[in-house]
Amino acid sequence: MNVARLYAAHDLRLAEEPVPEPGPDEVLVRVSAVGLCGSDVHWWSAGGIGDARLERPLVLGHEFAGVIASGEQRGQRVAADPAVPCGVCEFCREDQPNLCAALRFAGHGREDGALRQYLAWPARCLHPLPDTLSDEDGAVLEPLGVAIYAVDLGQLRPGMTVGVYGCGPIGLLLLQVARVAGASGLIATDRLAHRLEAARSLGALVLPADGQERAAILAATGGRGVDVAFEVAGENEAVETAVGSARPGGRVVLVGIPDDDRTSFSASTARRKGLTIQLVRRMKHTYPRAIRLVESGQVEVRSLVTHQFPLDAAAEAFSCAQQRKGIKVIVRP
Amino acid sequence: MNVARLYAAHDLRLAEEPVPEPGPDEVLVRVSAVGLCGSDVHWWSAGGIGDARLERPLVLGHEFAGVIASGEQRGQRVAADPAVPCGVCEFCREDQPNLCAALRFAGHGREDGALRQYLAWPARCLHPLPDTLSDEDGAVLEPLGVAIYAVDLGQLRPGMTVGVYGCGPIGLLLLQVARVAGASGLIATDRLAHRLEAARSLGALVLPADGQERAAILAATGGRGVDVAFEVAGENEAVETAVGSARPGGRVVLVGIPDDDRTSFSASTARRKGLTIQLVRRMKHTYPRAIRLVESGQVEVRSLVTHQFPLDAAAEAFSCAQQRKGIKVIVRP
Amino acid sequence: MNVARLYAAHDLRLAEEPVPEPGPDEVLVRVSAVGLCGSDVHWWSAGGIGDARLERPLVLGHEFAGVIASGEQRGQRVAADPAVPCGVCEFCREDQPNLCAALRFAGHGREDGALRQYLAWPARCLHPLPDTLSDEDGAVLEPLGVAIYAVDLGQLRPGMTVGVYGCGPIGLLLLQVARVAGASGLIATDRLAHRLEAARSLGALVLPADGQERAAILAATGGRGVDVAFEVAGENEAVETAVGSARPGGRVVLVGIPDDDRTSFSASTARRKGLTIQLVRRMKHTYPRAIRLVESGQVEVRSLVTHQFPLDAAAEAFSCAQQRKGIKVIVRP
Amino acid sequence: MNVARLYAAHDLRLAEEPVPEPGPDEVLVRVSAVGLCGSDVHWWSAGGIGDARLERPLVLGHEFAGVIASGEQRGQRVAADPAVPCGVCEFCREDQPNLCAALRFAGHGREDGALRQYLAWPARCLHPLPDTLSDEDGAVLEPLGVAIYAVDLGQLRPGMTVGVYGCGPIGLLLLQVARVAGASGLIATDRLAHRLEAARSLGALVLPADGQERAAILAATGGRGVDVAFEVAGENEAVETAVGSARPGGRVVLVGIPDDDRTSFSASTARRKGLTIQLVRRMKHTYPRAIRLVESGQVEVRSLVTHQFPLDAAAEAFSCAQQRKGIKVIVRP
Repeated sequence: MNVARLYAAHDLRLAEEPVPEPGPDEVLVRVSAVGLCGSDVHWWSAGGIGDARLERPLVLGHEFAGVIASGEQRGQRVAADPAVPCGVCEFCREDQPNLCAALRFAGHGREDGALRQYLAWPARCLHPLPDTLSDEDGAVLEPLGVAIYAVDLGQLRPGMTVGVYGCGPIGLLLLQVARVAGASGLIATDRLAHRLEAARSLGALVLPADGQERAAILAATGGRGVDVAFEVAGENEAVETAVGSARPGGRVVLVGIPDDDRTSFSASTARRKGLTIQLVRRMKHTYPRAIRLVESGQVEVRSLVTHQFPLDAAAEAFSCAQQRKGIKVIVRP
Repeated sequence: MNVARLYAAHDLRLAEEPVPEPGPDEVLVRVSAVGLCGSDVHWWSAGGIGDARLERPLVLGHEFAGVIASGEQRGQRVAADPAVPCGVCEFCREDQPNLCAALRFAGHGREDGALRQYLAWPARCLHPLPDTLSDEDGAVLEPLGVAIYAVDLGQLRPGMTVGVYGCGPIGLLLLQVARVAGASGLIATDRLAHRLEAARSLGALVLPADGQERAAILAATGGRGVDVAFEVAGENEAVETAVGSARPGGRVVLVGIPDDDRTSFSASTARRKGLTIQLVRRMKHTYPRAIRLVESGQVEVRSLVTHQFPLDAAAEAFSCAQQRKGIKVIVRP
Repeated sequence: MNVARLYAAHDLRLAEEPVPEPGPDEVLVRVSAVGLCGSDVHWWSAGGIGDARLERPLVLGHEFAGVIASGEQRGQRVAADPAVPCGVCEFCREDQPNLCAALRFAGHGREDGALRQYLAWPARCLHPLPDTLSDEDGAVLEPLGVAIYAVDLGQLRPGMTVGVYGCGPIGLLLLQVARVAGASGLIATDRLAHRLEAARSLGALVLPADGQERAAILAATGGRGVDVAFEVAGENEAVETAVGSARPGGRVVLVGIPDDDRTSFSASTARRKGLTIQLVRRMKHTYPRAIRLVESGQVEVRSLVTHQFPLDAAAEAFSCAQQRKGIKVIVRP
Repeated sequence: MNVARLYAAHDLRLAEEPVPEPGPDEVLVRVSAVGLCGSDVHWWSAGGIGDARLERPLVLGHEFAGVIASGEQRGQRVAADPAVPCGVCEFCREDQPNLCAALRFAGHGREDGALRQYLAWPARCLHPLPDTLSDEDGAVLEPLGVAIYAVDLGQLRPGMTVGVYGCGPIGLLLLQVARVAGASGLIATDRLAHRLEAARSLGALVLPADGQERAAILAATGGRGVDVAFEVAGENEAVETAVGSARPGGRVVLVGIPDDDRTSFSASTARRKGLTIQLVRRMKHTYPRAIRLVESGQVEVRSLVTHQFPLDAAAEAFSCAQQRKGIKVIVRP
């Protein structure tokens, strides 16, 4: 089978490798669509992300859908949960599988991901796709799950106002899920005009991230601020915007993955408002709901997919994603 | 001014009375629209409700909008919160004003309500109406608030499935608010065909309340049941339907006001499923959100108003409401 | 090895059976102490409980401790979680393993329990016992876990008042855990004098369950009622007491296993007070905390154990438990 | 009457002033004990705190008890809530009186506090003191309330482990309330030996705040970290310790009032652990519980009071508090 494997920063090599053998509790999956995430692009461009570095040539790709190719379920179209928690540690036992210390995660560390024609994956991490969902839809369920989990943590209720600071794929999905959760007012910021345009088309009031956005958000909310502020840019300025624009008693949800190791915010402001600041680590309990929301049409994911590439153009796909000209780039093995 | 005052069951008398004098912290309100609630009809037809009996001739009406007619805010259109909590008891201090033991409530006990041309009401219980909301819309904010509070207590999250058992005005508003809160599947039951039709037009799967509904709901959800079951009929059968059709780990929210004093349910079923059963007492913290939801178009209340009467036809209005031919009956003083 | 197996109501037979072979993920456990639960006594005296009947001769016993007798952990003293959730169903995946539809439970249905010298049990369901905990302590961790989970669901906070209606082993453990959770006032009811005496020694104000207890509890709380009311008797009268004695806005936690299938309560009372009624199904996430609480001395379990029997006197042990003369009966294989 | 009024940093003047006249809803209170808080000391030594500066000569003091000296309740001993929320703003209406934008707060801004013989205070902000509580006990209920509210926000449950970083009066009260709430392991840090000694006497494992405490806490918890970490020092190092020592999925509660305006923490660490960071603004709903906890002996406040001064030695009292030689300094007008 064909595989795209990263050997070093910008060194992505296509090769033929043997089809993997499923272990116990695993099935073979023929991969049909793989979304590229910001973290994939980071691995590709920098050879690592955060503390993690390439330990050996790695197959990236953790947003994926495919078809089961072994066992009784052969032929079943599925979306895959890229996270495989150990199931026995304290955090797994106490309903925090997303915090599992022994987590295997597709396309990260020593775990090869989905940029190949076949992979073996635990059956319990595969979710059947209804016919009405395309392969690309299936691949987008992973970032949609992150957005759903972030909204869960934001404790949104109907009639609340919401700020989303950063309008990449997850930010745009967050806007949709926040609207589905009953948000009455959506405010979005980003640096890029085409992302703001996408946010506007979802019904958000959009503001350029130009350093004046905090004042503009307060003005737009009559000085009160938003009920829930989502930081999705992974930048300190967006954290400040979130802390500064949340209403007294509001929630700040930090979804973005920061580049550097220190985030700072105005402690006086946050304390005076009695804020709750929630950090988001991956997601949990979201696939069934993600599937229902797309199936019912409450969330529309198809228009997010702006570019598609075959597996042998994977390097081109990474380059396209890095330039941030579109929204979501899909590779189709 | 003209007043409709209830002297005994079915004995509603129109009279001229002096315009009331606002007390400290009160303003005069010229009433423009009053919705009739099931509890009003109960007072009218039976001379009381629950433990409460007519102690003296009473002006009914607690769902109302009007125009401020005294003080600096004169001319401001408002919706009124009919509940005036004491503000000092333990429950008021600990954020349960809806449980205040010394609560004054318009059109209940010794507190005259809104079926008259003017009443004096505490300024803090009046909420400004945007121009886009009509007087009738303003009157419907009260039952909408009950629906919002019930959904709050139901802890709905996007992608959940919901059952609403009883499709009077509050049930129909609940369906809308549940949809706004992201419910992916709505199931509604009632005995009356025109109510089921209204529920169907809101996107619900509708089932007649014919004794077979519990099995039908389980069948419709693949045997799993709904995430949150709202009982809005005030009947023991609906309580049983709610307990029987909620999924394991689900929530049952009892919104209806039962006629008799004993509600029974299958304890084994409820225990095996580990259900949470939440009783709803009035509402709290809902007016600002209710106004935003109607203003933004997320909730549509106008079509609920099927009948309107002038104040001097109030008896006719009660009779119409009792026959349950329409949905919401409004009296316009 | 020796086994005590129930063939029919009151027909408990001792026999020699082969030592079981551990399956994958299982280890052999040499059983050292088994507590008898009210449900065990029910099986023994009636040949079943609730909907469940003896399908084949069954080994009872689900409160147990032992020593690992196979594999790398051989010699490790452990307490066993009797519940083995499937890990893949919706409820397992969404953190409700206690509601797992495919749950295996020791000593229930087709799953043999611990009244024997050895059993094979999943390694992940075994919790290492510190040296300071005796075998009997280890066996009592199971009902202690139920009490901890019930207090979790009761959402107790320091300074709250608590009612516990029913003072069998779980009720007495609940009193202790409630005190550990900061309850400032404990009120307990039971029919049996020696149980009330045990409750009194834990610092509770005790009241006989004589039909007057609801009025007495209200009097003792200045008419206000308790913040959280735990029903642990499994009787309708206790449910009524709980609903009637909870304060407005309070929580009623139903821990008892009712004998008959219908529980009824005063819906008007419950609604007027806006109560939350929480049903308890088994427990989750409690073993590590249970061990810490006993180890630190915050909860004292040893004095609960009033009777001990060897395995060949198991029938006598059941008879003793049924007569309710002591608190907790332990069988030591 | 005698009054101690601050004219500028370190310029505290004693004077005779007329006894104030209670307004509507107010009563006259003869002050019997006033605790000095870190913020009082800040006003005294720097002429302001945070953004607030002396606008006019100010009477400090917001932790106080006294005796009602006017009206029907004359002679009733009371503890006073120093915060008077407006009751009508959005935050007051939605149960966040501690975030009220129009809050009056004793001894802050334009609101004179309790360092005088009499003050007029709203009756609803006065809580009757049982005979078993002394005047000093009554004054300490205010910081105890902050500790209770912080533990509420920490969502402590029995068996959890807790870190308290900073052992001034509020830190020491937090340790007690955490223990009352069932914490099984307490870890405390501070720079000052006598504070650590006080923490040790409350059962905490104590560690000097010497830059190595984060590693030491992790070592003491087997690498796992504490379930809830309270920062009470108002220093960035303590924030870092809290973020670094909280377990995955844990809560960090920031109680301290930071001197400068920027708090920074390791965003990667916080994100990887999916932490919730909760800022604490004053308190709510705590007086009745605080009184119960002291009355029942669950919390011991008397030993916190290490120094007492008469009103005419108020400057000396501030000086004593600033030197941090004891724990709590009380002034007795």
